[in-house]
Amino acid sequence: MSGNTFGSVFRISTFGESHGEAIGGVIDGCPSGLNIDLEAIQAEMDKRKPGQSNIVTQRKESDKVKFLSGIFEGKTTGTPIGFIIENENQKSKDYSHIKDVYRPSHADYTYEKKYGHRDYRGGGRSSARETASRVVAGAIAKQILNTITITAFTTSVGDICLDKPYQKLNFSKIEDTPVRCPDKETAEKMINKIQDVRKQGDTIGGVVSCVIQNVPIGLGEPVFNKLHAELAKAMLSINAVKGFEYGSGFQGTKLKGSQHNDLYYPDGSTRTNFSGGIQGGITNGMDIYFKVAFKPVATIMQKQEALNNRGDLTMMQGKGRHDPCVVPRAVPIVEAMAALVLVDYMLLNNMYK
Amino acid sequence: MSGNTFGSVFRISTFGESHGEAIGGVIDGCPSGLNIDLEAIQAEMDKRKPGQSNIVTQRKESDKVKFLSGIFEGKTTGTPIGFIIENENQKSKDYSHIKDVYRPSHADYTYEKKYGHRDYRGGGRSSARETASRVVAGAIAKQILNTITITAFTTSVGDICLDKPYQKLNFSKIEDTPVRCPDKETAEKMINKIQDVRKQGDTIGGVVSCVIQNVPIGLGEPVFNKLHAELAKAMLSINAVKGFEYGSGFQGTKLKGSQHNDLYYPDGSTRTNFSGGIQGGITNGMDIYFKVAFKPVATIMQKQEALNNRGDLTMMQGKGRHDPCVVPRAVPIVEAMAALVLVDYMLLNNMYK
Amino acid sequence: MSGNTFGSVFRISTFGESHGEAIGGVIDGCPSGLNIDLEAIQAEMDKRKPGQSNIVTQRKESDKVKFLSGIFEGKTTGTPIGFIIENENQKSKDYSHIKDVYRPSHADYTYEKKYGHRDYRGGGRSSARETASRVVAGAIAKQILNTITITAFTTSVGDICLDKPYQKLNFSKIEDTPVRCPDKETAEKMINKIQDVRKQGDTIGGVVSCVIQNVPIGLGEPVFNKLHAELAKAMLSINAVKGFEYGSGFQGTKLKGSQHNDLYYPDGSTRTNFSGGIQGGITNGMDIYFKVAFKPVATIMQKQEALNNRGDLTMMQGKGRHDPCVVPRAVPIVEAMAALVLVDYMLLNNMYK
Amino acid sequence: MSGNTFGSVFRISTFGESHGEAIGGVIDGCPSGLNIDLEAIQAEMDKRKPGQSNIVTQRKESDKVKFLSGIFEGKTTGTPIGFIIENENQKSKDYSHIKDVYRPSHADYTYEKKYGHRDYRGGGRSSARETASRVVAGAIAKQILNTITITAFTTSVGDICLDKPYQKLNFSKIEDTPVRCPDKETAEKMINKIQDVRKQGDTIGGVVSCVIQNVPIGLGEPVFNKLHAELAKAMLSINAVKGFEYGSGFQGTKLKGSQHNDLYYPDGSTRTNFSGGIQGGITNGMDIYFKVAFKPVATIMQKQEALNNRGDLTMMQGKGRHDPCVVPRAVPIVEAMAALVLVDYMLLNNMYK
Repeated sequence: MSGNTFGSVFRISTFGESHGEAIGGVIDGCPSGLNIDLEAIQAEMDKRKPGQSNIVTQRKESDKVKFLSGIFEGKTTGTPIGFIIENENQKSKDYSHIKDVYRPSHADYTYEKKYGHRDYRGGGRSSARETASRVVAGAIAKQILNTITITAFTTSVGDICLDKPYQKLNFSKIEDTPVRCPDKETAEKMINKIQDVRKQGDTIGGVVSCVIQNVPIGLGEPVFNKLHAELAKAMLSINAVKGFEYGSGFQGTKLKGSQHNDLYYPDGSTRTNFSGGIQGGITNGMDIYFKVAFKPVATIMQKQEALNNRGDLTMMQGKGRHDPCVVPRAVPIVEAMAALVLVDYMLLNNMYK
Repeated sequence: MSGNTFGSVFRISTFGESHGEAIGGVIDGCPSGLNIDLEAIQAEMDKRKPGQSNIVTQRKESDKVKFLSGIFEGKTTGTPIGFIIENENQKSKDYSHIKDVYRPSHADYTYEKKYGHRDYRGGGRSSARETASRVVAGAIAKQILNTITITAFTTSVGDICLDKPYQKLNFSKIEDTPVRCPDKETAEKMINKIQDVRKQGDTIGGVVSCVIQNVPIGLGEPVFNKLHAELAKAMLSINAVKGFEYGSGFQGTKLKGSQHNDLYYPDGSTRTNFSGGIQGGITNGMDIYFKVAFKPVATIMQKQEALNNRGDLTMMQGKGRHDPCVVPRAVPIVEAMAALVLVDYMLLNNMYK
Repeated sequence: MSGNTFGSVFRISTFGESHGEAIGGVIDGCPSGLNIDLEAIQAEMDKRKPGQSNIVTQRKESDKVKFLSGIFEGKTTGTPIGFIIENENQKSKDYSHIKDVYRPSHADYTYEKKYGHRDYRGGGRSSARETASRVVAGAIAKQILNTITITAFTTSVGDICLDKPYQKLNFSKIEDTPVRCPDKETAEKMINKIQDVRKQGDTIGGVVSCVIQNVPIGLGEPVFNKLHAELAKAMLSINAVKGFEYGSGFQGTKLKGSQHNDLYYPDGSTRTNFSGGIQGGITNGMDIYFKVAFKPVATIMQKQEALNNRGDLTMMQGKGRHDPCVVPRAVPIVEAMAALVLVDYMLLNNMYK
Repeated sequence: MSGNTFGSVFRISTFGESHGEAIGGVIDGCPSGLNIDLEAIQAEMDKRKPGQSNIVTQRKESDKVKFLSGIFEGKTTGTPIGFIIENENQKSKDYSHIKDVYRPSHADYTYEKKYGHRDYRGGGRSSARETASRVVAGAIAKQILNTITITAFTTSVGDICLDKPYQKLNFSKIEDTPVRCPDKETAEKMINKIQDVRKQGDTIGGVVSCVIQNVPIGLGEPVFNKLHAELAKAMLSINAVKGFEYGSGFQGTKLKGSQHNDLYYPDGSTRTNFSGGIQGGITNGMDIYFKVAFKPVATIMQKQEALNNRGDLTMMQGKGRHDPCVVPRAVPIVEAMAALVLVDYMLLNNMYK
């Protein structure tokens, strides 16, 4: 209710502020008997962690996950998996200048008005540091999903856009560049773009695409909990996200029904896939694909006007170490949230088998 | 869990198939002592009902709501509000030809695979007829929201697009045309477009915009239940929706932080509103605005290939009375879902006052 | 949240006041493909309905259930099952004398204070008439549970107590007497007791026992949602219930561990069953058994003091037609609630198979 | 769903096994701006912790709570409160003898059957060690409840029973004896009883009573979520609990309505309080009181037959350090769970003010 839990039967509850002692979470509803691959979890964490390349924030965090429960002799027991990630590199003094100040387009002002009392250091609870806990849960979800593959990658940075359909991309190239765009030429342009805006002390937005393959038929619940509705919520819950579209998306609104309808093959698969793998909220076995829009990071290294708690406009400049573009580090978060949605609906679907 | 309930504390559970005896719902968590304006509810229903103009389906349903509980002497009692809407105009024989057939881009195939047994008549549970119950609940929610206004309107039909910012529109003109676009000139083009595609036996998609004004500061929950995340889920749960964006949306990804940040006035309001009235998932008192993409209706009046349950491809043609464009009738549904989200978060916020 | 929904994945939401047009409910999460035995449902309803014998209220209600959705060609479709039961025999004028009056030990006063505005007729929402909807849902749940049998019966009326262990009872005799006690001699004493108190214009309490047999191993969730905890909540949610005990119950507190421990047979069954079929919140395959305490009905046909909304004490006398003892009609309600709990946990357990 | 979360808006999710690295929890929905009294929390912990007196287990745990989030500069921020309690005194080798053995009347067998893979050490997740996390959350809940007082005490140990009504007891004496019975004479008998059974290597059950005073009118939700139904669930979720009764309880079933009805004073309070402060599931402002039955601890220091995972009956004897009677240490747990229920319903009630 208070917004810190995601999922209906496979559930992750997260806690923690960016400059507290630790962040962490509790995963409830994980099946028992699952061999946990700890290295695979850490590999996902490493894709999200700061300092991983020269186009992301240079803040250093090892982001090592410490599991406290729910795993015994390497296997899950069906009991809740509690875990923490320590906050190592807390330069809290970097934030003393914003103690009484509401940075523009940050959550400082709204948290202050809603809660009255807030941990202002590094955004506190509203910091994207919270997403590290999502990546832990998502990495476990992926191990349950097994043959279902979830692949996210960068589609655009500012106006640099990858225009190829995903079927023409080689997903094995995604990790070849720090920007996580599988097309080398476009990736280089994106990297240049990010380095340009960073030099200006500025930031830039972008789009992450995600493709889910080998999806069984029948996942999803009708009416309010359509699979794509839950995916939309999952994605919009990620910091800085402004939009979501799946299948034909906004472009599809320009098509006629005769163009847009996905005709069948005799085996139930379809010739086209404008539906994005979901009909009536339920998977039809075709690939699910969707796009997620990320706004430019609000913290810029330029002077700009902020508001303080006495109602004065005051000039401030971002300090600390921030991302010039959130998109490269958002890729594993998009995958994690997609995995959490999928595993939840897979378990729900199991109930009636 | 099974997807037929929306909301956390103000909750609507709906039931009913398009060709059953009745559809309906239960609203739980409605405050007591509210004077219910039944005419206002029916007025919302009339905006959604079939047969209201010559650019929508000519099916006839009076869509009269019958309240069974929760209202006593004209006022709510705080107990659940049960209601039904009878299905009057059930030409079920219109659907005998699809008994064993999966129409392309419909939910026929996925429901069959998920449930094994389905009411195929008129789409059964997957029919947008279900949204009538949402409009009932939304109309009550609006009465609770009181001074918060929710205004949806048609922004595009196919490639006919209303390009003005909402601040330049006169919302009082929305109901002047059956397409519900407040700009007369654009509205006429949209109507012509719809009539064209209908003559072709075809259908067309479109976009609905929604603006929420007079919003109190502090609505929304952080992390997973951000206000815009719940709005996204609410919108994507509407039949035929493929995308959602709020504030600067997908276009905002092309901007730099220095352009996109909303600088403050001393009173806490902002000079620009790329944030769409929400920062960190919580309202900041500025207008909320968002767009919702609707695909073209799948049922077309042209011959096209379908799949039957024996695995044969078979030619079929839509019968019955269908919308050539869902957007005009979707406008009140978008408002209803927005109202349900807002009232839920308003009540949640009350808890801590 | 507002208390009108029960269950986590098999969920019943009820609505309706005793003197409104109808009561009803929505069952969500029912598996598809279930052949619904409508006669079996009505048979359960008939066990609960007023006027069934001369030891219960003589109010007349046919209590016919009308299903509106979720069942197609006699089988469930997996979509929500909406149903209504019309209120036929609404002698609302019987209640005009309590419009401004709070009857002792009724919910009149607390509803007035909580909601400000209430339907006072016949107790409105707080009337046990609401339990008719539970019996509908429970009857469907029983059909899903199939070989799991749930048997409730009357154990005591006032100080007339059936002292035999349930293993010595012949459950087929339960319906032989209107008091639903399987021991004929005790049943007769109970009936006499009820007739005595009725002649005095008084009422009397009692205890219902319930035995659940053929239970699979592994139902139940640990920690907060232990199976017996949910059973306790289910039972305490029934009107007039004051207590719940399972297995050895309150008497078991007097035993030593060496007496109370249930030693195993090699097949995992136990020699004794003080545990009541549940260990650590999870079924062990032995019979579940529990007792439910019902207070005497508050409405008596004697003059007694009530309070009106002006703060005056005022003499009043019960009118209308009331039960001298709620226990005989509570038997099917106890079974229904037990069935709802069991089916919910059965589905939850299926998720991990 | 999986049972590790309690509450609807004030929610505690717990994790941890008795012999893992740590147990802990996440409290979500705590109001912001609350000055947290850490000493008061530790004081509650100390009432529950092992080794506190010579009638409880001599296992040593300091049970120090470490808060990781949600508290900033001594005050809550409205964000989730994550906390851990380290497991210090893990003599895991004490449990090697039960690795493949199911102890009678323990959850070993049912966990094995449900999950296939379990942490057998010290009962793992099914250990009452988990209740330490409940006490943390309950202690915070008490600070929110403020003037509402919750007082639990020992009413019986085996057949030694405190027969006075709670109004005749001096609650300030509860902590005078390690058995937590406020009547000194009875307390001594109870202590002797516990020492006797311990000498025999045996255990004994008992009853805890709880009284809640200064309760506002209007807490509770009708129908399924009646306040007493949720209290029942809360209590039955505590390890070893077999029964719950409130107000007149099981004894009340023997009374007539004319005896049992609570007549009003003009101010709405009642002359008697058989209702236990709750009518129709909603508080009426009178004291809430209830009793909770605890079975004898299953682990005894005598030889008894157990079952191993090969289907052999095998003699075993309890090792380690166990409670001869759980009741003295259960007193703070009963209070904690009651506080969690009350604060949840208080927040729910706030929504509609």
